[in-house]
Amino acid sequence: MSSEATKLVDGSTRILGIVGHPIAQVRAPEVWSAMFRLHRLNYLCIPFHVLPGDLPAFFAGARTMRNLCGLIVTIPHKPAAVGYVDALTDRARLVQSVNFVAVSDGKWTGDIVDGLGFVGNLRAHGVEPRGRRALLVGAGGVGTAIAFALGEAGVADLAIYDTDEVRARNLAARVGATGAAARFASPDPAGFELVVNATPVGMRPEDPLPIEAARIDRGAVVADVIVKPTRLVEAAAARGCRTFIGTGMMEHQLEPMAGPLGLGAFDFSAPTVSRVARQIGS
Amino acid sequence: MSSEATKLVDGSTRILGIVGHPIAQVRAPEVWSAMFRLHRLNYLCIPFHVLPGDLPAFFAGARTMRNLCGLIVTIPHKPAAVGYVDALTDRARLVQSVNFVAVSDGKWTGDIVDGLGFVGNLRAHGVEPRGRRALLVGAGGVGTAIAFALGEAGVADLAIYDTDEVRARNLAARVGATGAAARFASPDPAGFELVVNATPVGMRPEDPLPIEAARIDRGAVVADVIVKPTRLVEAAAARGCRTFIGTGMMEHQLEPMAGPLGLGAFDFSAPTVSRVARQIGS
Repeated sequence: MSSEATKLVDGSTRILGIVGHPIAQVRAPEVWSAMFRLHRLNYLCIPFHVLPGDLPAFFAGARTMRNLCGLIVTIPHKPAAVGYVDALTDRARLVQSVNFVAVSDGKWTGDIVDGLGFVGNLRAHGVEPRGRRALLVGAGGVGTAIAFALGEAGVADLAIYDTDEVRARNLAARVGATGAAARFASPDPAGFELVVNATPVGMRPEDPLPIEAARIDRGAVVADVIVKPTRLVEAAAARGCRTFIGTGMMEHQLEPMAGPLGLGAFDFSAPTVSRVARQIGS
Repeated sequence: MSSEATKLVDGSTRILGIVGHPIAQVRAPEVWSAMFRLHRLNYLCIPFHVLPGDLPAFFAGARTMRNLCGLIVTIPHKPAAVGYVDALTDRARLVQSVNFVAVSDGKWTGDIVDGLGFVGNLRAHGVEPRGRRALLVGAGGVGTAIAFALGEAGVADLAIYDTDEVRARNLAARVGATGAAARFASPDPAGFELVVNATPVGMRPEDPLPIEAARIDRGAVVADVIVKPTRLVEAAAARGCRTFIGTGMMEHQLEPMAGPLGLGAFDFSAPTVSRVARQIGS
């Protein structure tokens, strides 16, 4: 048992927190901590299990931790976190949601990088959203972030569907206000070049399909935010579509977070994250 | 790079915190985390660097963390921590200081186990304080905990000296109120069978001796709370005295904390802690 192998943490360790409810399922502690170790950085990503009503006290307490370098915010706290930071990036202000807080000289800046991760993953695999006709199913937290990111990426048409029609219409109006071609639509995927599932439908094996797979164009790209391959992804692949699952979206979020963490000089690129994630059994 | 070697932490990891200022020097994160790993427990001991004025907000925030199983409290927060728990053990109430908080069903119970660790270390090495004449130099936080522990252990005489005479007299009166034979005294070690340095004097190589070493009885036991061998310890050893440094006191605190953490079935005994501490280079 060498010192190298056993010294997991010491008094000088800096902390990247992740706050959520539930928390046991999050992959960030493993992936980030393995990336820190790869770079011989004395940092750990630590889970904090916090219930929604406790969020104000948690944030006030987390602000007292001088060795906290940042905070990842996950479900269900992303919208509420907007209220507990000192500043928002432009995209976090648009999305009205925070999934990452950078801490610098006591100033907490909220950002949202999951939409960025989604688009970054497509582009890394040669799929450029610009000019494409896109259908987005799901106007919740992740869907909202993806909608703004696809709008910014310049899709030719952004059709948004949600079982909650008001929510979908509101999101379309908000994204449209940025100059993007966004509109409310039905869940019919026919005629779209990019089809995105941003609902939780498909997390459980018994879930129905969020859209009718038989209506997906055979040349379409189908991307699901769910980490495991869903029935939708399988059905789309069977039709010959190119498909994406949620892992790449996660892996493309580390690099945009690493800069504000002061780790921009290190390699947090998605290919390295992906390699490390495979090694730790993600 | 095997999964075993790289998986430092995941979403299910439970946290034993340690809060202090400064924090970089604390050994608890390394030692506790190595002990957790030895037992294949998915726990980590994580440092939280918190300034004194921030303690109320820190405690309120820490209470929201459902995966926090306990909190070690170190300098300078031990006396203040008394005010942020729901209950105190008898010894914490006497000492009016908390160095460990056990969390059980949302109830926070403050305890102080450093005096217990001090006496436990002596006893583990065959030195029974009962019936001994003891001189304690230093009536600060650690000195106070040791004074009550020596009183409870049944020393025949507990002479307490501090450069702050009022502080020493107050401590003697408080320990005396428990029925122990405690009194204010000069720092002259002549005639004492147990001599304890509980001051920080000796942490720096250029520090003077806290007492006159030439006056220590050659058969006395000399114990220092400082972790590295001090000039006092070296001088006492040169006189033929049996000596103790602060590491053993620390190692004997893990077992009394492990029970309230719900880890009583595991081996947190001082010999195992000592072996693990040596392996990680303590």
